[in-house]
Amino acid sequence: MDRLECLFCGRKFDLNVFDFFCPSCHEPMLVFTQPRKRQFALERKLPLEKYQSFLPLAHVDRSLSLGEGDTPLLPLERVRRKHRLPLVYAKNETVNPTQSFKDRGTAVAVQKAVAMGIKAIGTVSTGNMAGSTAAYGAKAGLKTVVLLKEDTPPDKVRAAGVYGPMLLKVRGDYGELFARSLEIGRKQGIYFMNSIDPLRIEGYKVTGYEIFQQLNGHGPRFLFVPMSAGGHFLGLMRAFIDLKSEGLTGGMPVIVGVQAKGCSPLARAFAAGKTRFTRFRQGQTIAHAISNPSPPGGNLVLKLAYENKALLMAVTDAEILDAQRDLAELEGIFADPASATVLAALIKLSRKQRLNLRDEVVLVITGSGLKSMETTALLDIPVRQVSLSRLDRALGAVGS
Amino acid sequence: MDRLECLFCGRKFDLNVFDFFCPSCHEPMLVFTQPRKRQFALERKLPLEKYQSFLPLAHVDRSLSLGEGDTPLLPLERVRRKHRLPLVYAKNETVNPTQSFKDRGTAVAVQKAVAMGIKAIGTVSTGNMAGSTAAYGAKAGLKTVVLLKEDTPPDKVRAAGVYGPMLLKVRGDYGELFARSLEIGRKQGIYFMNSIDPLRIEGYKVTGYEIFQQLNGHGPRFLFVPMSAGGHFLGLMRAFIDLKSEGLTGGMPVIVGVQAKGCSPLARAFAAGKTRFTRFRQGQTIAHAISNPSPPGGNLVLKLAYENKALLMAVTDAEILDAQRDLAELEGIFADPASATVLAALIKLSRKQRLNLRDEVVLVITGSGLKSMETTALLDIPVRQVSLSRLDRALGAVGS
Repeated sequence: MDRLECLFCGRKFDLNVFDFFCPSCHEPMLVFTQPRKRQFALERKLPLEKYQSFLPLAHVDRSLSLGEGDTPLLPLERVRRKHRLPLVYAKNETVNPTQSFKDRGTAVAVQKAVAMGIKAIGTVSTGNMAGSTAAYGAKAGLKTVVLLKEDTPPDKVRAAGVYGPMLLKVRGDYGELFARSLEIGRKQGIYFMNSIDPLRIEGYKVTGYEIFQQLNGHGPRFLFVPMSAGGHFLGLMRAFIDLKSEGLTGGMPVIVGVQAKGCSPLARAFAAGKTRFTRFRQGQTIAHAISNPSPPGGNLVLKLAYENKALLMAVTDAEILDAQRDLAELEGIFADPASATVLAALIKLSRKQRLNLRDEVVLVITGSGLKSMETTALLDIPVRQVSLSRLDRALGAVGS
Repeated sequence: MDRLECLFCGRKFDLNVFDFFCPSCHEPMLVFTQPRKRQFALERKLPLEKYQSFLPLAHVDRSLSLGEGDTPLLPLERVRRKHRLPLVYAKNETVNPTQSFKDRGTAVAVQKAVAMGIKAIGTVSTGNMAGSTAAYGAKAGLKTVVLLKEDTPPDKVRAAGVYGPMLLKVRGDYGELFARSLEIGRKQGIYFMNSIDPLRIEGYKVTGYEIFQQLNGHGPRFLFVPMSAGGHFLGLMRAFIDLKSEGLTGGMPVIVGVQAKGCSPLARAFAAGKTRFTRFRQGQTIAHAISNPSPPGGNLVLKLAYENKALLMAVTDAEILDAQRDLAELEGIFADPASATVLAALIKLSRKQRLNLRDEVVLVITGSGLKSMETTALLDIPVRQVSLSRLDRALGAVGS
């Protein structure tokens, strides 16, 4: 039986997908693991199979997979030269089945749901997690509920709605909705795989193992990840803690959690050396996917950040737009604003402190810009009009 | 030196990226290949490297790759059961770097452009090919021109424009623009990698090899692919012709090229047993990505279809929408309408003729529904509104 542990009080509980906040500390728990000569099975087909001994899955059901993971690690040579950066790579999670890293977490959570005989799943989300959960729920033939904020724009509603879940727009406070969904889920037997679900976090670990593997068996010096509720940050950190505890790697990368300045409760608490964050008022940023004024995993992120010498940073919307542009124009990667934060943060860090140019840095690109087309209106994209007869002249300067 | 051949008159020419229509037949040529004990190098990293001996690339430059290919082949069990189909798989090309199969072709064309010292590339497109060419051009640091129809909607313009190409909206006939771009390109040294570029077609071959490999070394019985200009169809067919000529496989799959009935010049010509197609007037369909009233590779498609016992079919918009819905609701795959044609065609074929239920069928899903959000308004997606206090009741029916 898999167990959950509270890292604050040290208590452990049998894993139960309906309860993952510690009853005394009220903080989210993580899957408890012990070093036990785990190893990679790289000859296997699916990422969940390759790294299965590091995951709380006794069995991997291939029929539930949409082909998540195994994403490319791309050297960013042109960005590197422009900004005089260390050896920098993008781990491109936008090529997952529903175009975001969320699929990694959903894949593990749905495996577990089916293994446990659960018939209904759900999520509370306004974007990537809604589509991901609805897609995997459809594939598995599970009843799926997607709870949305009242003002979710039609395109986002439909991007999840195509998979045929029960779609509910809920009036009321979003943070309250998160808590209420878990309560109702427990009562009604609906597994709400919301952000910081410990099984989701297990899925994000796989990204860390892949990076380790793609760098030929070592971690990068720095690993930048966009940060909202904290699940992705926690998963990547746990991946390298696992590798270290198994003796597979010596050091830990410096994991850098990045928030948008306009909504950065964790980066603010970290900068002030606090162990508890406070709710961010009037949070506003173009990086909607990581705009969470009161992230439920926040205190756990802070605790693990201090313990593992991680960094939490914030970047401005202007810096985000510049970085989004560089990723697209120099590297051919169309990242959403939330993902572009990681390049903005690397550039900022490299200006503050001298980084070793031979160090390896990995930026995790979490979601596709295609899902945030509304923000591209902020990019200055020049278009010229020309008639067919004048095309030759208009192209005159290009070839030479 | 690689060569091009005209399959109509049999003449051969040295490969030259500016001229790929036969000067006497005015039909597109293909890369000429001879059986020569080619083999897969599966231990290598990139798909272009694994299948390099089948491609006109002396060298693969990894720095030009965005991580294209290596896409999943997913069994569609729930669709199969619903429609009583043979063993059916989706080859999901939407998880390519710019979310469409076009990246396969662009990757090869850009490799060649850089190897030949070409400094400027371009394309004529309203959608997937524009984004793909602009992304790979950005990665390679090439000057890139994207020519668009005058009425291209702003979101499509920006989805290509983010990569920073020179964007021109051109007034005038679209078919004429295709021809004119090649002319100007030749004169000015701009390599226009438009549809049915023979190097693009070489890139699409790789999808065929991957399918062969994923089915453990044999082809499927049927291989369905959406068809517009014909490049993708030709590439997949050439892949299996290659495998047969190398003695790696016995038979050819029946390759089924699928058009939308509202714009189906090739399916119409095929149904009438004609060897030449005629321009389709007032073509109209929701499957914009394959709506080409006068496909430049059309006669070559017809010729190879008859020679290799392929099928060309058309499906209606209503059938497309049903299939799009089935792919999403039963299999968690959000395909664009153009891609959904392949499932619609399989269902149609299975009703017309008894298919062996143990046969293997592959459907190539070419593009993501996220790029055609406007058509999702045609899907009936119910959304309910509820207040937080009534959420418990609203979810009452789900868990049980």
